[in-house]
Amino acid sequence: MSDPLADAISAADRKFRGDAARARATFTSESRLGAGFRSDVSLRGHALTVDEPHGIGGGDAGPTPVELVLAALGTCQEITYRAFATALSIPLAGVAVTVEGDIDFRGFFAIDEAIRPGFERMRVSVKLTSTADDQALQRLVDIVNRHCPVLDMLTTPVPVTTTMSRVAG
Amino acid sequence: MSDPLADAISAADRKFRGDAARARATFTSESRLGAGFRSDVSLRGHALTVDEPHGIGGGDAGPTPVELVLAALGTCQEITYRAFATALSIPLAGVAVTVEGDIDFRGFFAIDEAIRPGFERMRVSVKLTSTADDQALQRLVDIVNRHCPVLDMLTTPVPVTTTMSRVAG
Repeated sequence: MSDPLADAISAADRKFRGDAARARATFTSESRLGAGFRSDVSLRGHALTVDEPHGIGGGDAGPTPVELVLAALGTCQEITYRAFATALSIPLAGVAVTVEGDIDFRGFFAIDEAIRPGFERMRVSVKLTSTADDQALQRLVDIVNRHCPVLDMLTTPVPVTTTMSRVAG
Repeated sequence: MSDPLADAISAADRKFRGDAARARATFTSESRLGAGFRSDVSLRGHALTVDEPHGIGGGDAGPTPVELVLAALGTCQEITYRAFATALSIPLAGVAVTVEGDIDFRGFFAIDEAIRPGFERMRVSVKLTSTADDQALQRLVDIVNRHCPVLDMLTTPVPVTTTMSRVAG
């Protein structure tokens, strides 16, 4: 019986293996600040609203940027689990992930320059529903953690360039 | 005339400066994989749907995890610009940010272990609408880039621990 997801992964793998140029892509986010801390984002036509909670002057119209980082890591783990379980034929009926991040706002508020503004540490708790044996499951964990794109970006620095320009009001 | 945002920032600053314990917080993301690559996320009650595009087996019900990273960085830059412009009384009428990330899928697909699975580089383009002089604007750029939480997390490694447990189906 054919598994559409396995077929799609296998087809993408063949495409990228055969032609490196087709494996390269650029993703874009466009956003604009509205009133207060609210920002409206467009991602390939998917809309997203980001805001800060009421306590620090926001309108709480959506999650904060650092919460998006937690969501990015949790969902990236889940998708990477499904992709590799499918590719390796390891049974996996379900994946649920909780991600926590500890922050000290004295970093962002420039109260203490020795405190980083981002999360000081993050904890990922993965719950797998599977009939695979322990060895297969541990093999899956290891390969997922080596290939999860968001985990990679949080643990190995990404070269980021920033440019600023002034525009007319 | 009182600026509610300036008042909120100033009140938070006083609170965190006066009591380090109140400056520390933990944020949480809870998510669960559904059919295919779709995941439904809860962030303090804010709901978010993440998915992969059709091309690699997804249903395109929402942005991908790596697109969330772009959105997190773009909106974090915007919010940090507004916060510091307000705190420093630098006029800032608008902020719009475009973030691009270059990826080579041969990393995620484990075709070439020398290629990282995450973005190989990211570009942030910030457009500011301001009547401030060039020197004040450059001062703002510098302080924002030193205190933007998401920029920090992408450029300085975050300690991440992952734990896996098996749950009943």
